[in-house]
Amino acid sequence: MRRVHILTTGGTMEKRYVEQNGEMRNTEPQIARCLKLLRLPGLEVTVEQLMNKDSLDMTEADRECIADHVATAVAKGLPVLVTHGTDTMVETGKVVAARLPTLRTPVIFTGAMTPLGIEGSDAMQNLTEALLATQLVQPGVFLSFHGEVFPIGTVRKDREHSRFVSTEAARVATEEPQGRG
Amino acid sequence: MRRVHILTTGGTMEKRYVEQNGEMRNTEPQIARCLKLLRLPGLEVTVEQLMNKDSLDMTEADRECIADHVATAVAKGLPVLVTHGTDTMVETGKVVAARLPTLRTPVIFTGAMTPLGIEGSDAMQNLTEALLATQLVQPGVFLSFHGEVFPIGTVRKDREHSRFVSTEAARVATEEPQGRG
Amino acid sequence: MRRVHILTTGGTMEKRYVEQNGEMRNTEPQIARCLKLLRLPGLEVTVEQLMNKDSLDMTEADRECIADHVATAVAKGLPVLVTHGTDTMVETGKVVAARLPTLRTPVIFTGAMTPLGIEGSDAMQNLTEALLATQLVQPGVFLSFHGEVFPIGTVRKDREHSRFVSTEAARVATEEPQGRG
Amino acid sequence: MRRVHILTTGGTMEKRYVEQNGEMRNTEPQIARCLKLLRLPGLEVTVEQLMNKDSLDMTEADRECIADHVATAVAKGLPVLVTHGTDTMVETGKVVAARLPTLRTPVIFTGAMTPLGIEGSDAMQNLTEALLATQLVQPGVFLSFHGEVFPIGTVRKDREHSRFVSTEAARVATEEPQGRG
Repeated sequence: MRRVHILTTGGTMEKRYVEQNGEMRNTEPQIARCLKLLRLPGLEVTVEQLMNKDSLDMTEADRECIADHVATAVAKGLPVLVTHGTDTMVETGKVVAARLPTLRTPVIFTGAMTPLGIEGSDAMQNLTEALLATQLVQPGVFLSFHGEVFPIGTVRKDREHSRFVSTEAARVATEEPQGRG
Repeated sequence: MRRVHILTTGGTMEKRYVEQNGEMRNTEPQIARCLKLLRLPGLEVTVEQLMNKDSLDMTEADRECIADHVATAVAKGLPVLVTHGTDTMVETGKVVAARLPTLRTPVIFTGAMTPLGIEGSDAMQNLTEALLATQLVQPGVFLSFHGEVFPIGTVRKDREHSRFVSTEAARVATEEPQGRG
Repeated sequence: MRRVHILTTGGTMEKRYVEQNGEMRNTEPQIARCLKLLRLPGLEVTVEQLMNKDSLDMTEADRECIADHVATAVAKGLPVLVTHGTDTMVETGKVVAARLPTLRTPVIFTGAMTPLGIEGSDAMQNLTEALLATQLVQPGVFLSFHGEVFPIGTVRKDREHSRFVSTEAARVATEEPQGRG
Repeated sequence: MRRVHILTTGGTMEKRYVEQNGEMRNTEPQIARCLKLLRLPGLEVTVEQLMNKDSLDMTEADRECIADHVATAVAKGLPVLVTHGTDTMVETGKVVAARLPTLRTPVIFTGAMTPLGIEGSDAMQNLTEALLATQLVQPGVFLSFHGEVFPIGTVRKDREHSRFVSTEAARVATEEPQGRG
């Protein structure tokens, strides 16, 4: 049976509505609820909850902690999925990639723009895609989001459009007019 | 065909998740979406959007505006439903009751603890109940919430338990032990 | 605390999708799941599951059984809600009304056109309304559906439009032109 | 921008509840509704509705028609996604594979055990995964289901457990005890 190890760190994917103050907060982890909504009969999923933070509040120590746990799972031959807030997901991914230059398995980062349980949430889509990506891509650190899988060194958040975009595509787009000139 | 006139004023029932800042806000009215989820073949529903405010931000002028529009609808013989934030719903209801001591039709206030479109929301339940209450209760100002219909003068919000409770029940409960003593 | 006694008998409200044959069937009662979706802090709800049948399969003995259990609950002073398939809901309601000509509490029949858990289902709306109706109407046998509460002797199913309609309204509509002539 | 061409043929993924008779039927295609629930900003999706059939009703002519349209899309360099009933999905996939032995792009078959819009449906999961698979796997004919991507020649439906299983895994499992003996 194929396997995947999930490390959860918080972010929008794990936020919930708190009635008392009407805010969205990282209270208790939601990953178990998410996984119950999926059918994965051929996949053995293990989950480790490292922290439950808005990614703007993450420290360097937090990123090192994540990299440590990724290293441990990869050493066991497990593909890894890291759920993470979108604001600093690329930053953490780059820390992991720098710490682990030669990987035996894929490490996929994902998250959400709208929390699970809110109408129009992209949490289940991103989790579903990232889980499949752990089974299909080669070893390396990637960011999976909205139907795309980016190598971690070539992606940035596009806050205005609530998505991630390739920095390479942008460069090509910029250079193209010159190439035609 | 039976009729009801809905006045919307905002509150949690009308809040939506805003991806850019991760907050719940009163942006655009949601009442049309709510009504589409109900089947009311025997009821002619008209909707008037008065404002879209958190009820903690309501002014005396806002409450007078609401009372004016209730008066106009009642004068036409229409039962009235007012959607309103829970924090000052009772206060506005009392302003309306004081302004309109003799009513020809029922005036029902309702709202929600969790916005429509969030898992576990009570918005559709409260709207469904309040609409039926406009057809079943006698003329007067009432607050309909979580399966209960309270005369406006006998109800208060119980913030801790995210509900409304009867002030009369509380008094009875307090007096009862003495009565038995 | 107010109370209501629910008698479940099956019908569309209780149907579920069966993957093995792709059909909707009355397998296990769904009422507990429905009630968990509602907030009813002031209502003590008791549930008795009498049968789980498509109402086209109900026998006279089934209807007598329902009437017996309604009588028992009414004798205890409990308002009663009966969930029932729509095809013979009026028939059963009339059996109950004939058996219990003098009632101390309201007896409300309801059901659904589309099962709970299917997009566009009217099950939660009808259950929500019927529960409130048990608290607001006078003693008698009623059918509550899609925002309307009909005395049982004045209602029939309109299969084509997936709703219930008043037989009195129809009669009035028919007579009106004459009245004006 | 990356592209995918979707061919819809019916099956459970496209079934809807019909109130008049209480059955699940292939009435109108649901693929547009499914796609609206996904965020795919980097993917240009085109849809062609070939038929809307329960796959037990498919004829050889239907399978040839599907193979023809797959061939046309592949010839344009498009990855292809075919939505299909689960009962004969493997059979149609093999017809396509036999007709198109050398492919330039991936052709992914998928479907669902429970229709979209029914609680617990696997339709969105399978569609999400299959769309990503069209972007990640090498050219060839595959079946994507419940988190697994199978080469079409090595998969069969396991009706009892509502899933697909590898025929190779089964063979290995059978042989293993002997290998150890």
